Amino acid sequence: MGQGRFGAATAVTALGDGTYEGTIADGWDINGNANGGYLLAVVARAMTAAAGRPDPVTVTAHYLSPGKVGTVRVRPEVLKEGKRFATVRATMTSATGTPVITALGSFSDLGGSSDSIELVDGAPPDLPPPEDCIPRNTTSTGPAANFSSQLDMRLHPDDARWDRGEPSGQALVRGWFRLHDGEPMDTIALLCAVDAFPPTAFNTHLPVAWTPTVELTAHVRARPAPGWLRCTFTSRFVTGGFLEEDGEVWDGTGRLVAQSRQLALMPRA
Amino acid sequence: MGQGRFGAATAVTALGDGTYEGTIADGWDINGNANGGYLLAVVARAMTAAAGRPDPVTVTAHYLSPGKVGTVRVRPEVLKEGKRFATVRATMTSATGTPVITALGSFSDLGGSSDSIELVDGAPPDLPPPEDCIPRNTTSTGPAANFSSQLDMRLHPDDARWDRGEPSGQALVRGWFRLHDGEPMDTIALLCAVDAFPPTAFNTHLPVAWTPTVELTAHVRARPAPGWLRCTFTSRFVTGGFLEEDGEVWDGTGRLVAQSRQLALMPRA
Repeated sequence: MGQGRFGAATAVTALGDGTYEGTIADGWDINGNANGGYLLAVVARAMTAAAGRPDPVTVTAHYLSPGKVGTVRVRPEVLKEGKRFATVRATMTSATGTPVITALGSFSDLGGSSDSIELVDGAPPDLPPPEDCIPRNTTSTGPAANFSSQLDMRLHPDDARWDRGEPSGQALVRGWFRLHDGEPMDTIALLCAVDAFPPTAFNTHLPVAWTPTVELTAHVRARPAPGWLRCTFTSRFVTGGFLEEDGEVWDGTGRLVAQSRQLALMPRA
Repeated sequence: MGQGRFGAATAVTALGDGTYEGTIADGWDINGNANGGYLLAVVARAMTAAAGRPDPVTVTAHYLSPGKVGTVRVRPEVLKEGKRFATVRATMTSATGTPVITALGSFSDLGGSSDSIELVDGAPPDLPPPEDCIPRNTTSTGPAANFSSQLDMRLHPDDARWDRGEPSGQALVRGWFRLHDGEPMDTIALLCAVDAFPPTAFNTHLPVAWTPTVELTAHVRARPAPGWLRCTFTSRFVTGGFLEEDGEVWDGTGRLVAQSRQLALMPRA
């Protein structure tokens, strides 16, 4: 875990009775509600601790109620400890006992090299250098202003024009991601990266104010190399009041480090 | 629930103490281990009953141990009952108490029409008529022979040549799906459909015998219209010993009814 602001904001403490205490930190919210990827990162810290394995390989979160600033508790339950994976479930509850987010994941140790067979049909997004991209926190993020300032995100200029009332017309958002102040990124930070960018729906011509997440699943393929990550988010199907948002995260070595899909609500604006 | 063989093989009975009893039916296995989508369907029957909502909207399964023929128990736990969704988790255990599969899902009622905004960037696969496709159970499915005969699946001829040692070279499997004997398909049957086809990896030139599922997430967008479903499965990334398999299921009206992604292991053959 990094020692910077992300590490501090996601830290949990074992209370010794199987429960972990953490905090929904001030400033990680969108319109007063903590960002979903950030909440998942806090839960996943407790799950990795209980699993005795540092890396989420596949983790799914369902969102139960808005996350408000304050102390939270997480009680992970290890369902299976295998040679390669430990499968864990956990629910985060607020100080008043309200369930905020529940998660299920399989954890492993992704350290060490792999000689596995590889097939890659895809590539990192083609992005202008970070300094020529649009810092996320300079867009008119409105209710997302607090959260946007916690992470260093730079949007592809073509995908940031919704901000001026010119959506690209494609449900596509591409950009750079890193933590502030050179804080190193572990695999938990990837869980935050996959839910940190503006909704893809902002670049469609559909009337939408926000797309609240129902469920988010992230697959982590590898620990990221230090430095900027390149991210792509797309949506193909807005139907029945739902949309999926698919994410890919690539590290500086050109390696796919995470894949994500979330199911979100698409309410009429 | 249909009254046919799928309905019978996935039926559960409430025991009155919050537990449901079901059966891993004979013949739904691949090499002695029950198919993952079938197992998920059994668990989801108990989850929908506990939720008091008939439709899984998003459900995730992690596979803990092989499912063997026999009586099983499922104890669903309702984590939240909201206006629109009920979120439930559940683990299936064998008669000896071994956890087989654990799941987390949000359930709703997908009946009724929706006037929601729509955006569709995709289409059902272009398939020859079912009678010109390859019945799945006539391919040399080897260990999958039992399971393949339980469902009526017809593979696109171009995607079924791995069987003759001629993989297409594309990690793509397309085909028709329905239950036998005109058994109607509910949204639980979709959970089976998304894990029923041969692994996409069979159509690559990679050396692989099988791709065991670690995790499977299905999103259900709508109840399917009666009749054949058209399905597409693709994989884009085989890295670090894992691959994802993405599924789309379309009904006869041309509507996307389910989307799926699983993370599977890609062991060397």
